Amino acid sequence: MAKKRKPGLSDLLRVPDDRPVDLSAYDARATTGGPRDKRAALADIARTGERLADLQERLWAASTAGDRRRVLLVLQGMDTSGKGGTVKHVIGQFNPSGCRIKAFKAPTPRERKHSFLWRIRRELPHPGELGIFDRSHYEDVLIARVRELAPPAELGRRYDQINDFEESLADDGVTLIKCFLHISYEEQRRRLLERLDRPDKHWKFNVGDIDERELWPAYQEAYELALHRCSSPQAPWYLIPADRKWYRNWAVGRLLLEHLQALDPRYPKADFDVAEARERLLKGA
Amino acid sequence: MAKKRKPGLSDLLRVPDDRPVDLSAYDARATTGGPRDKRAALADIARTGERLADLQERLWAASTAGDRRRVLLVLQGMDTSGKGGTVKHVIGQFNPSGCRIKAFKAPTPRERKHSFLWRIRRELPHPGELGIFDRSHYEDVLIARVRELAPPAELGRRYDQINDFEESLADDGVTLIKCFLHISYEEQRRRLLERLDRPDKHWKFNVGDIDERELWPAYQEAYELALHRCSSPQAPWYLIPADRKWYRNWAVGRLLLEHLQALDPRYPKADFDVAEARERLLKGA
Repeated sequence: MAKKRKPGLSDLLRVPDDRPVDLSAYDARATTGGPRDKRAALADIARTGERLADLQERLWAASTAGDRRRVLLVLQGMDTSGKGGTVKHVIGQFNPSGCRIKAFKAPTPRERKHSFLWRIRRELPHPGELGIFDRSHYEDVLIARVRELAPPAELGRRYDQINDFEESLADDGVTLIKCFLHISYEEQRRRLLERLDRPDKHWKFNVGDIDERELWPAYQEAYELALHRCSSPQAPWYLIPADRKWYRNWAVGRLLLEHLQALDPRYPKADFDVAEARERLLKGA
Repeated sequence: MAKKRKPGLSDLLRVPDDRPVDLSAYDARATTGGPRDKRAALADIARTGERLADLQERLWAASTAGDRRRVLLVLQGMDTSGKGGTVKHVIGQFNPSGCRIKAFKAPTPRERKHSFLWRIRRELPHPGELGIFDRSHYEDVLIARVRELAPPAELGRRYDQINDFEESLADDGVTLIKCFLHISYEEQRRRLLERLDRPDKHWKFNVGDIDERELWPAYQEAYELALHRCSSPQAPWYLIPADRKWYRNWAVGRLLLEHLQALDPRYPKADFDVAEARERLLKGA
């Protein structure tokens, strides 16, 4: 980028695309670039809520005049990493009517008959919208790799297919913000135990989550590969230290703010005669 | 209802289904059953936000164990009556991931090839969700009647078709909350003029809105007919005085609260061995 600017959180959390990723080198309790504690983070979040909603409204307003731009937030991370909590707390600050949220589950038989990107394309945000994917096409190189749900050659091709797909999205006005919510093995244990300790959290618990947990090293490796092979200037990955929920929420909100500010959406100019419309209104019985 | 209970806002705002509706008899500036002023309303709204989100989570949790119940809020009203504002302020209190919001526009050519309920059925909330319709199938007996978009005989049949449709929804676990946002002719003028006065609101203004406004009496009549013919114990209409935005938001939030409380959704019991799961987690490396 030729334009000089103060480095933002986006610069601090962007996964480098020139070398392999080693997740063990990233502290999941870090608070990179963030406020000094939870109280300061909550205060900052409360302060920026209105700016986020205002930028979202501008983006929407611009779309009514033909601006095709939109934002797609992709949330990935191990079970309990806080994908759902991020939607609740961060996306909860936006006007819900401009948000298109999709939580991807295991593909249905119908979905499995198509290319893995088929169901993704159907859930993309429309111009002016903020799209949120809770899991995404990356599952097809994560659980699919760990659980060997596709032949190795096919898995190998998917990284390039994802890159091509995301490039085409960027060309069509989609600002991609891909967040990997990075939690530690110990933190996941604490969170799963907490779900067991509270009867009002049992519904969130799935015995299958323990089976997945036993494959932790394989998942970390799959994430390292996905983050490395699918980071590009147009569609970078951001690694969000997520052991502290307040930092995770602050950081994702800040990334959204930085990207929306960079888009700088504007209210469209009136395409009608304002004076004439006013006169008609005042004249009416 | 055999059960004795304190009358709620639902009782106060429900449109009587035993006699024709005369909208001119309802004061759009009323604050029926509400707090005494804006400040008190905002305080009350802030207090109930957490209860709404908690009930929503329970409804969602119950659905993971097979409970098919869900809520569908239908918002209707003249231009500027505040359908969008209600979504922003009232629905903004819920977890966005459990909300399915649909703003219905003029039907597309594809939609027009089907029965008027076809596109509605595709947007219904799934079990555990809170669905929100900003406009709905009622447009097909409102603008369709005023603008004569269908033959009279067909229009006449639609009321019964709507009643049958809504009865089938109720039978399938859908709690319908149909809200007519009732504003006065003068208040609409003020709001349209405000949009003209503010360049950041021009994008919301549509010259067609003035054309519709000139048909105000025909629209009021169409609403009176729809409210009368499609109010049933299973799917009543609520008439929300909407000239005061703070009352409108308070009232719709309160209706949602009363209905969710009546549903009384419960967290499902664990369907797995909690002690065994805990042991596996603690044993893991």
